[in-house]
Amino acid sequence: MFDMISFIERKRDGGAHTAEEIQEFVRGFASGAVPDYQASAWLMAVFHNGLKGEELKEFTLALAHSGKILSFGDLRIVDKHSTGGVGDKATLLLVPLAAACGVKVAKLSGPGLSFTGGTVDKLEAIPGFQMHLSSERFIEQVRRIGCAISGHSDDLAPAEGKFYALRDVTGTVPTLPLLCSSIVSKKIAGGAHAFVFDVKCGAGAFMEDYENAEKLARALVSLSKSLGKESMALITDMDQPLGEWIGNSTEVLEAVSVLQGKGPKDVEELVINLAGAMVSIDSDLSFEEGCALAREKLEDGSGLEAFAAMVRAQGGDDRVCRTPEKILPLAGKKHTITASEDSTVRALNARKIGEGVKRLGGGRMSLGEPIDLSVGVRILKKNGASAGRGEALLEILYSDEAKLADAMPFFESAYTFGKANEHSEDTAQRRLILGKIG
Amino acid sequence: MFDMISFIERKRDGGAHTAEEIQEFVRGFASGAVPDYQASAWLMAVFHNGLKGEELKEFTLALAHSGKILSFGDLRIVDKHSTGGVGDKATLLLVPLAAACGVKVAKLSGPGLSFTGGTVDKLEAIPGFQMHLSSERFIEQVRRIGCAISGHSDDLAPAEGKFYALRDVTGTVPTLPLLCSSIVSKKIAGGAHAFVFDVKCGAGAFMEDYENAEKLARALVSLSKSLGKESMALITDMDQPLGEWIGNSTEVLEAVSVLQGKGPKDVEELVINLAGAMVSIDSDLSFEEGCALAREKLEDGSGLEAFAAMVRAQGGDDRVCRTPEKILPLAGKKHTITASEDSTVRALNARKIGEGVKRLGGGRMSLGEPIDLSVGVRILKKNGASAGRGEALLEILYSDEAKLADAMPFFESAYTFGKANEHSEDTAQRRLILGKIG
Repeated sequence: MFDMISFIERKRDGGAHTAEEIQEFVRGFASGAVPDYQASAWLMAVFHNGLKGEELKEFTLALAHSGKILSFGDLRIVDKHSTGGVGDKATLLLVPLAAACGVKVAKLSGPGLSFTGGTVDKLEAIPGFQMHLSSERFIEQVRRIGCAISGHSDDLAPAEGKFYALRDVTGTVPTLPLLCSSIVSKKIAGGAHAFVFDVKCGAGAFMEDYENAEKLARALVSLSKSLGKESMALITDMDQPLGEWIGNSTEVLEAVSVLQGKGPKDVEELVINLAGAMVSIDSDLSFEEGCALAREKLEDGSGLEAFAAMVRAQGGDDRVCRTPEKILPLAGKKHTITASEDSTVRALNARKIGEGVKRLGGGRMSLGEPIDLSVGVRILKKNGASAGRGEALLEILYSDEAKLADAMPFFESAYTFGKANEHSEDTAQRRLILGKIG
Repeated sequence: MFDMISFIERKRDGGAHTAEEIQEFVRGFASGAVPDYQASAWLMAVFHNGLKGEELKEFTLALAHSGKILSFGDLRIVDKHSTGGVGDKATLLLVPLAAACGVKVAKLSGPGLSFTGGTVDKLEAIPGFQMHLSSERFIEQVRRIGCAISGHSDDLAPAEGKFYALRDVTGTVPTLPLLCSSIVSKKIAGGAHAFVFDVKCGAGAFMEDYENAEKLARALVSLSKSLGKESMALITDMDQPLGEWIGNSTEVLEAVSVLQGKGPKDVEELVINLAGAMVSIDSDLSFEEGCALAREKLEDGSGLEAFAAMVRAQGGDDRVCRTPEKILPLAGKKHTITASEDSTVRALNARKIGEGVKRLGGGRMSLGEPIDLSVGVRILKKNGASAGRGEALLEILYSDEAKLADAMPFFESAYTFGKANEHSEDTAQRRLILGKIG
């Protein structure tokens, strides 16, 4: 019989578990035979003593195999994971753009968590778009048009979901091996053969400093390798929000404008780099050649075409690719925040913008809450920009005055200003792609 | 509102808690508002990061004050705590002997845990003896005759009991600050003003090596001091069982024989040292003077007289003090283990003897189980003794053949032998009193 107390004591004292023990533990926790209070003591022991390479691999596999594993037969599937940021609409464009480059992408996404938005919520802004595909339909669509995005299904890696919920309430979320196993187990359950990780770094990300972001990136790549999976991790800036728009409808709007060649340059650069990474781990092309191919497919309209095909395949209104502002729900009320004096933007805190949008109704205060897809914020002045007195900094689309009042303190405190035309290291544009691992 | 997740995170990251936070946490856990899975994550964080002096003091006080606190008015109460060992009948004699020396002793005891026996079970072997006194009766008896021993009541430090149960199943028992707070909080709830700790050390104790036993002893004395309580800790040998008899009835038998001046010398030495410590922290006498007084009270029969008074006061049959073998239940069957060749006892493992007696029915395999008070073991050859071929090593009193069969492997493997008349460092008698702190 599995002795859970000895299992906890071994990790508590810095020892290592065998593969069999880890499998029994995960099975026991998933079935309820191992109670939460024992699992949480083990999680805290892992926070302090870690999991060694073999243990981490076995734990990840045990999580992945706690439910069904999607199979795409002989198709090689590439997946991408972002650690989450504010205004990060990359998935919406990246999936079809990579498909236009010949990569097969089967993307499983979650709803928004905390102050960051979720792909599931964003895509639901497109009328008719079906976010929850059956496994059969999901697999069939990837085979037919090269890509699909679906909500994460409960029968994939269910033990991971149960561990995540427990970590969330026991102070054990920021534990490197647990973060890695959580991310990678879901990718494996989703049937992917190779992964690209977008590890966000900065004030609007879970990893605020570069050192920790790099540690996570290296750990993800190393775990993937131990499981025989190709992977690459980019470490990307999330000090200020990505692009101009934050929200749900509004981020779809911006994704389309990037695919149309007229969107913000930072979003374009991020997506081209991620698509380049996906191409390079799936072919003989180098990362640079992959990026060049992605740029070509963006500029010749293939990316937009692939997006339209995906929207149609999932039952959505593909007029969103031509006239998104007529198709997407957009809140009717607008409030503008302006500069009170001539100044230069020294910092724009992504987390505060994310918290503000959440309070407008664009995100969830608690799990399962309905959200208002129509609200959002447009950032008119980003880091390093000059703003004259009275000039607009932020445009807020909102539906409800009370919610606007709740959100305002976050928006109002998001900016840090310097003197007009002052240039310092702080106001210098930070590079978007900060590092590349693997 | 109390934020339990931040509380866990603070300890996880090595920070310190405020007094208010600790009080809220203990209150929340006691009431059920803080779930077990959060408390266990915190316990494991404490295992790794400890509790600082002030935190430990506040945690101990919060546990003590989670229920009622006994009050003896102007009476100064001295209590003694043993960390538990095999054959440790010291409490039975020590309490009346200390009372005979003028110390007021109000002793709250628990049932046997794991492989060690419990005072509550042992005293219940005396016909009529009432182990569970009401607070009023307990206090009144101490006032009247100077001592009482009662089962630990659930309304004293109830939060401590709840934490103990959780620690027991989450691998967080051997955590120095948690051990200390558990022990001391119960003493404070029991109304004591000064404490003597008997920290057992060796193969038959929870602390197997001297270094850890000394750490625990120092921590107990330091915590007591921070709470304004006098204390002293003795570190005593528990490599081999204490005395000759292990069991319940059989340990009462031995306790009486020591009070009659004809018991094993190790039990006598331990009790005189502990009584000396109790006298010295409660008076102007030195430790040595206290021991001398205790020896005098043992030799002149005052200790036995105080024991008889306590037995009478608690409803027990005081003939136990004159003809214990006629009063106490003793199992009718006897099995003797003999030496298979001429040899010298090099080691006698106390834990194995304890596990064997438990399996005879003399201890509990699970909480709440009834036990057989009549079974026991008499050790005829201890460390360093010579045994000729066929000579008796161990006499087993038992009631049930099947239980004897379960117990035999423990008894049979408890001895390690050397060649006959061989003397080595291993077979040399280890001192009984290994250290004294405070």
